[in-house]
Amino acid sequence: MWGYPEPIERLMEQFMRLPGIGPKTAARLAFHCMSMSKETVAEFSKALLDIKERLVECQICCNITEFSPCPVCRDERRDRSVLCVVQDAKDVVAMERTHEFHGLYHVLQGAISPMDGIGPNDLRIRELLTRLAGTDDSVEEVILATNPTVEGEATAMYLSKLLRPFELKVTRIARGLPVGGDLEYADEVTLAKALEGRRSL
Amino acid sequence: MWGYPEPIERLMEQFMRLPGIGPKTAARLAFHCMSMSKETVAEFSKALLDIKERLVECQICCNITEFSPCPVCRDERRDRSVLCVVQDAKDVVAMERTHEFHGLYHVLQGAISPMDGIGPNDLRIRELLTRLAGTDDSVEEVILATNPTVEGEATAMYLSKLLRPFELKVTRIARGLPVGGDLEYADEVTLAKALEGRRSL
Repeated sequence: MWGYPEPIERLMEQFMRLPGIGPKTAARLAFHCMSMSKETVAEFSKALLDIKERLVECQICCNITEFSPCPVCRDERRDRSVLCVVQDAKDVVAMERTHEFHGLYHVLQGAISPMDGIGPNDLRIRELLTRLAGTDDSVEEVILATNPTVEGEATAMYLSKLLRPFELKVTRIARGLPVGGDLEYADEVTLAKALEGRRSL
Repeated sequence: MWGYPEPIERLMEQFMRLPGIGPKTAARLAFHCMSMSKETVAEFSKALLDIKERLVECQICCNITEFSPCPVCRDERRDRSVLCVVQDAKDVVAMERTHEFHGLYHVLQGAISPMDGIGPNDLRIRELLTRLAGTDDSVEEVILATNPTVEGEATAMYLSKLLRPFELKVTRIARGLPVGGDLEYADEVTLAKALEGRRSL
């Protein structure tokens, strides 16, 4: 039977490759694109190409950047004694938003996840070790800031073992109740972690 | 402070122009695009341009099509005595999926909505009248299949008045309980419409 015209079907297929977008949303987005001006669509199209062409991985911290080394690694005001290890580029932006961290980063580009076939060799772990063994001898503390998920915890455990020979302070970000959260609605694991991580006032 | 690299920010802005996509989803989509292969992103980019370049409005029914007249208008097996008026191209596809309608369509490209500044002149109403007054004298029935919303109903009322001089059968699609629905959970207006539209068995 008769479906959407081929260019719409094709754009829908492209939208459906994105996470969380099914056929109905894809149709809605494709039709919306059709109603946008030719200039807007051209900008959108160009922005997509640019993201592959204009971005590289920072040669030092493996973060995504326009110019390598990235602005953080180049910034001489950053504290070179603390290194924060995160899973991906979005986590760096989240950390920067706190305005509380002034050290350097290392972006793993993922977490260990046997279920998805992601092992240590698929992450930027070798780069981290080379970095710590080599030029960055100013590093005194490594903060493991991978996600508090099964994969993130496994990655943090794995890294903490690997980092033992370096005689560095290795820390893990705290798990506990989110600020503004409610004890009543917290899951048991989070509440247990919050209790375990209690500090004297 | 430091945000995402500029090419990512720019792609995020483009995604945020689409309906239902806020900053967080836009970031997730932009990062996903970055992880796709260069070829896939190029296809996506091309599909966007094509949607503006390769689609036109059918000169007869105003539906979106690659070649005008559209496949439905060209199809000689379609029943030229019934014309189904719908709001947009997606509605044509929805109707075709029922396999129950074999007539022709007219796509209004929207509905009357004073709140959004959309009046009768912004819709393909003039084209409908020209069509009925001119070549399509084979039409005997016009089915008003605009959405059962305030805007759709207003448009149907407006059209039914305009079509009076043509001495055609003008009908409106039925409103009632959706198949598989539950009386208990139906809203009052739908239930009232279902009662009003009851038929003898």
